[in-house]
Amino acid sequence: MTKKPSRFLQTPIEPFVVEAGLTADQILARMERISFQGRNLATAHRVWQKMLEDDVTIFMGMAGALSAGGLRLIVAHLIQHRYIDCLVSTGANLYHDLHETRGQRHYIGSPHADDSALAESRIDRVYDTYASEEEFCGNDNWIAAYAATLEPRAYTSREFLHLLGGHLWKTTGANGILTAAYRANVPIFCPAIADSSIGMGLSQSRQTKPGAGLIDIIGDIVESANLVIRKPRTASVVLGGGTPKNFINQASVQAEFYSSEVGGHRYALQIGTDVPQFGGASGSTLEEARSWGKLAADAAQVSVLADATIALPLLASALATTAAPLLARRKPPVFTLASRVMTIDGLTVPCDRFEEVNEPAV
Amino acid sequence: MTKKPSRFLQTPIEPFVVEAGLTADQILARMERISFQGRNLATAHRVWQKMLEDDVTIFMGMAGALSAGGLRLIVAHLIQHRYIDCLVSTGANLYHDLHETRGQRHYIGSPHADDSALAESRIDRVYDTYASEEEFCGNDNWIAAYAATLEPRAYTSREFLHLLGGHLWKTTGANGILTAAYRANVPIFCPAIADSSIGMGLSQSRQTKPGAGLIDIIGDIVESANLVIRKPRTASVVLGGGTPKNFINQASVQAEFYSSEVGGHRYALQIGTDVPQFGGASGSTLEEARSWGKLAADAAQVSVLADATIALPLLASALATTAAPLLARRKPPVFTLASRVMTIDGLTVPCDRFEEVNEPAV
Amino acid sequence: MTKKPSRFLQTPIEPFVVEAGLTADQILARMERISFQGRNLATAHRVWQKMLEDDVTIFMGMAGALSAGGLRLIVAHLIQHRYIDCLVSTGANLYHDLHETRGQRHYIGSPHADDSALAESRIDRVYDTYASEEEFCGNDNWIAAYAATLEPRAYTSREFLHLLGGHLWKTTGANGILTAAYRANVPIFCPAIADSSIGMGLSQSRQTKPGAGLIDIIGDIVESANLVIRKPRTASVVLGGGTPKNFINQASVQAEFYSSEVGGHRYALQIGTDVPQFGGASGSTLEEARSWGKLAADAAQVSVLADATIALPLLASALATTAAPLLARRKPPVFTLASRVMTIDGLTVPCDRFEEVNEPAV
Amino acid sequence: MTKKPSRFLQTPIEPFVVEAGLTADQILARMERISFQGRNLATAHRVWQKMLEDDVTIFMGMAGALSAGGLRLIVAHLIQHRYIDCLVSTGANLYHDLHETRGQRHYIGSPHADDSALAESRIDRVYDTYASEEEFCGNDNWIAAYAATLEPRAYTSREFLHLLGGHLWKTTGANGILTAAYRANVPIFCPAIADSSIGMGLSQSRQTKPGAGLIDIIGDIVESANLVIRKPRTASVVLGGGTPKNFINQASVQAEFYSSEVGGHRYALQIGTDVPQFGGASGSTLEEARSWGKLAADAAQVSVLADATIALPLLASALATTAAPLLARRKPPVFTLASRVMTIDGLTVPCDRFEEVNEPAV
Repeated sequence: MTKKPSRFLQTPIEPFVVEAGLTADQILARMERISFQGRNLATAHRVWQKMLEDDVTIFMGMAGALSAGGLRLIVAHLIQHRYIDCLVSTGANLYHDLHETRGQRHYIGSPHADDSALAESRIDRVYDTYASEEEFCGNDNWIAAYAATLEPRAYTSREFLHLLGGHLWKTTGANGILTAAYRANVPIFCPAIADSSIGMGLSQSRQTKPGAGLIDIIGDIVESANLVIRKPRTASVVLGGGTPKNFINQASVQAEFYSSEVGGHRYALQIGTDVPQFGGASGSTLEEARSWGKLAADAAQVSVLADATIALPLLASALATTAAPLLARRKPPVFTLASRVMTIDGLTVPCDRFEEVNEPAV
Repeated sequence: MTKKPSRFLQTPIEPFVVEAGLTADQILARMERISFQGRNLATAHRVWQKMLEDDVTIFMGMAGALSAGGLRLIVAHLIQHRYIDCLVSTGANLYHDLHETRGQRHYIGSPHADDSALAESRIDRVYDTYASEEEFCGNDNWIAAYAATLEPRAYTSREFLHLLGGHLWKTTGANGILTAAYRANVPIFCPAIADSSIGMGLSQSRQTKPGAGLIDIIGDIVESANLVIRKPRTASVVLGGGTPKNFINQASVQAEFYSSEVGGHRYALQIGTDVPQFGGASGSTLEEARSWGKLAADAAQVSVLADATIALPLLASALATTAAPLLARRKPPVFTLASRVMTIDGLTVPCDRFEEVNEPAV
Repeated sequence: MTKKPSRFLQTPIEPFVVEAGLTADQILARMERISFQGRNLATAHRVWQKMLEDDVTIFMGMAGALSAGGLRLIVAHLIQHRYIDCLVSTGANLYHDLHETRGQRHYIGSPHADDSALAESRIDRVYDTYASEEEFCGNDNWIAAYAATLEPRAYTSREFLHLLGGHLWKTTGANGILTAAYRANVPIFCPAIADSSIGMGLSQSRQTKPGAGLIDIIGDIVESANLVIRKPRTASVVLGGGTPKNFINQASVQAEFYSSEVGGHRYALQIGTDVPQFGGASGSTLEEARSWGKLAADAAQVSVLADATIALPLLASALATTAAPLLARRKPPVFTLASRVMTIDGLTVPCDRFEEVNEPAV
Repeated sequence: MTKKPSRFLQTPIEPFVVEAGLTADQILARMERISFQGRNLATAHRVWQKMLEDDVTIFMGMAGALSAGGLRLIVAHLIQHRYIDCLVSTGANLYHDLHETRGQRHYIGSPHADDSALAESRIDRVYDTYASEEEFCGNDNWIAAYAATLEPRAYTSREFLHLLGGHLWKTTGANGILTAAYRANVPIFCPAIADSSIGMGLSQSRQTKPGAGLIDIIGDIVESANLVIRKPRTASVVLGGGTPKNFINQASVQAEFYSSEVGGHRYALQIGTDVPQFGGASGSTLEEARSWGKLAADAAQVSVLADATIALPLLASALATTAAPLLARRKPPVFTLASRVMTIDGLTVPCDRFEEVNEPAV
């Protein structure tokens, strides 16, 4: 008599089998039935493919020193090939991207450096990575000078960053996050722009031009929510937490106030190193997000507890193979971004009032 | 013949001795010569005392769900008794503070909750803590209604939060972070206000009043740097990292561009749970901060790798005893905050241009 | 009309109120209704009190450099006053305890030390704590010499450590973990004794006395399980994870094979810094422990994600006040430990076969 | 006039460039000049190659639920192809390996499982992975039955595990860690065997055969140190910390007492998720190891802060390509393991006394 197997014991773990010459997608395929964060990363690969197959607007958030740390051209690639439709970033990531797009570099350093010696040499350290403070000052001036050329009125961070990306592209013709987004007409929001060297550059523009550098980040809230109201099916890819993670979720929650068609992200994946046990937003789980309505009840979702500098190169390399046919079929939303009122698929997306769509049917 | 002791082996570890009835300050005193994060917390107690003894402007940053998590009256206490002079906060902490000051509560919950059930009941979860979404909507409306009463012009987050605190105090007469700061004339900056429910409330004010809710966060950069230019000796207390941590450091770095008298924080302490190995700003060390000039070369500093919900109650309770005589002697800076241009010790602190003090001597 | 409150929103968060002169137990009482790890630490205080009120054998596990780090006299205090009944430790904690009990010290050091310079000076570093390698060699020799005096036969780690504690007490008359356990007749198990300097000392005894230093750690398994079989109601206090955590749980699981009266720990609390997401045993949750039968289905339990050097001084100081009446009433199990077969409450606890109690009733 | 570049700014970060079809080694090559843990993983790839090029005995430690989690065939592969020469493992990893080699499986599970329901179904959970308790009991009995067939005397864990691997191979003919090590004559040490289900199986052997299951883990210390004394050039690869990490270092430190030719590991790499700030051994840095003489002063070393379930599949896949020529040239040490006294390259490696080589020259 054979015993009935447990309902809990259905899918065996398949140990990873090593082989020479495995490609990124083959590695992730072999990680699908191992455990812990390896399995989660393989699941992230699947979830992202599902996003690309479905008709959803894909938001991506990035926080942490990913640009300085060598991931900026991956993000540029994701923008250019429309793995994502809208980027929400910290200011630092955009600033470090601008730094390199302008032909300057970050450098290999040591986490055990003598920081007083670095300070004397005017070298800024980000863990194991260095940059020249003098070059940073040059960037600040460059941003300040550009900001001073703009008509003195309020700009959402989205509008300003599109203009800045355009200026950067025209000046350098070089690839990067800001320039790729400019060329692909992908919007970038930076809700915490005041907490970055881009903000510092903007603030310095007031020194030469009174009233310059006015960024309407409350307008960004309205605009991002209206994006969701216009196209309620969304997905979220979050690298590292921080303000971008919450801002993407907030857009969905805010949109729900004004449109009953919004029901939270249909897909969500996050890669980061924070844990939920201390209550911080960066470490909060996607389960928790469900309680807020940030996530649809049946959303495909996965959290990967890993440093993006390991997880993203592997994941993006795998997607470069597996997502190619999906991208070829995909019809991403089309934006216009060059003025105060952006559009998505031809519809206006105002930043000065929410587009309520809950009017009773006649 | 006695061997010469090693220069490395000078101060022995003193094991902690348990006793009934120990007070917070006695506990921290006995932790001064143990190891690891316990020693660091005891050092934080010492460093904060040194800040209070010296003539420095003390900035405090707070990120993470500290208000929802039950620490808001500690922060209010630190403001009221001038353990700190300027608060930089995430929007969420101010919003959750406002929520309770308005007579509503957060609730004990479980991290293992059924989030779909919570979503159906419109309960929002922050790890092990719950709140009513309906009450949150009420707060949003309350903020929106207040913002709509303001003259439609740009407000720094500092000015807006002072006004909001005043309105809250007049409405409720209740203690909290915003109301304590209002009453003590302590400025609050919120550089990432767009990434919070306060921002959501502000955005909703536009629905009734075109042009409302315009927050000039670039002005916050100018103003915070001018604070440092006006009084170059500063100290930094950071709970949890995030945008507040960087914004406080940025004020110092930005001020240095315009004044050679600024030389980084003289004292720095941070309490948080992020580690530096992934390159994120929240986990970055105070050593690293030194390379940027955020910290004076000889600054007394300490990082405590701990959840603030454990570390801060113990630390604040100890300071309530040990800092009393220091607070009695302390002459904190005096602010006026009710208008677009704030003052510190009678000097104006503009938000529209930096106060350069590097003019060559004649 | 009043709305019915949600079943989820029953117990409000009570913000922590700062006051001068608060004692440890008052601080923890005020932390009971805050959030995150602060609440968990307050719950740990409650759970330990419940253990002491109930009739359970309390096992305590310790891993991590707690002895070197200044917590050894807390553990000695817990043993002496019978907050715990049986200690399971890493070898390093017992070795560093022996080091200090022998009149030597650990020293305040820096995590940023030049380790090559330390190596040249023969200083061993444990994060921010130093010790003299020469003194360590002296300890090894002292242990080797003592082990060589013992009759050459197999000893459980429990028997050996009791004998070693006795020898240490007779030699030094000084307080510490090993000597407190010797004097209070509290058993100490060290399943990974081979992975420590105590093991190194034992191994060196063979140089002078063939056949010395034979530790029967499989006998420790039998003995620890028999302890649970003899008295099936148990509780578990774990500091830091590692082999002690698992060994305590294993005793319960193993005992269950031979006695149907065993049903997992009735109470469990753990304090440590590892998270569960990577699958390691140190970070595993007490929920997970339930699946294995390590924990009774209705056990009162709590995990505190914190460094023990912060959490334990506060917790032990509070218990020194709140547990006094409970300890006065408590009737802890009585052990004899001086020979190969230990006893508990007069019953033998063999190390060479499990005491099966599942015989069918006649 | 060109400015002289800073000595700190020598090697620019090279952003990772995504491409379809990249293999593991190509991915790691592109990660060599990014930052944070990604760079560290690429460095680990380099360091392991250097180990294989040099004439060193490579020790590997493994802790954490790597076998249950799907990495056991990677470890078997590393053993079979002699990427490593000696394995030090927790008992659990060997037990879970034995479980699968015997034809049983672990299963995909959920970290959000109802653990009481699992307990009722007798399913044991390791984070997101399940196993049948009944099958585990079968393993225990199988181990107990085998242990009872052995001549009743003391066995080092190394000898016992070689015999157990042989029995497993003869019984199953299946690949796994224990069987690969048996077939390749690679020694396995398990210093904490008492803290595992292998230990539980051994303890149960005493029920049928008095005196069975006597494991001489102090002999393991002697033997492992003698291995280093016999061949003083060593390297260390550590997955996850725990007792294996320390045991490998201890072998080097202990060997140094008896041979002046030993000078710490020449190469060291560790992959794990613990951080050093809490003083635990698992998180301790390789810099700290240098102070103890565990690491040669000029050792090539790297720590990767990552979950092995992500890092190891990528690293092992890359090595399968890049290490092939190195392995073809490599002359690994040759062991005999079937009796109480093992040999390395024809030299005896006793477990009952250290082989002193410091005798003064005549």
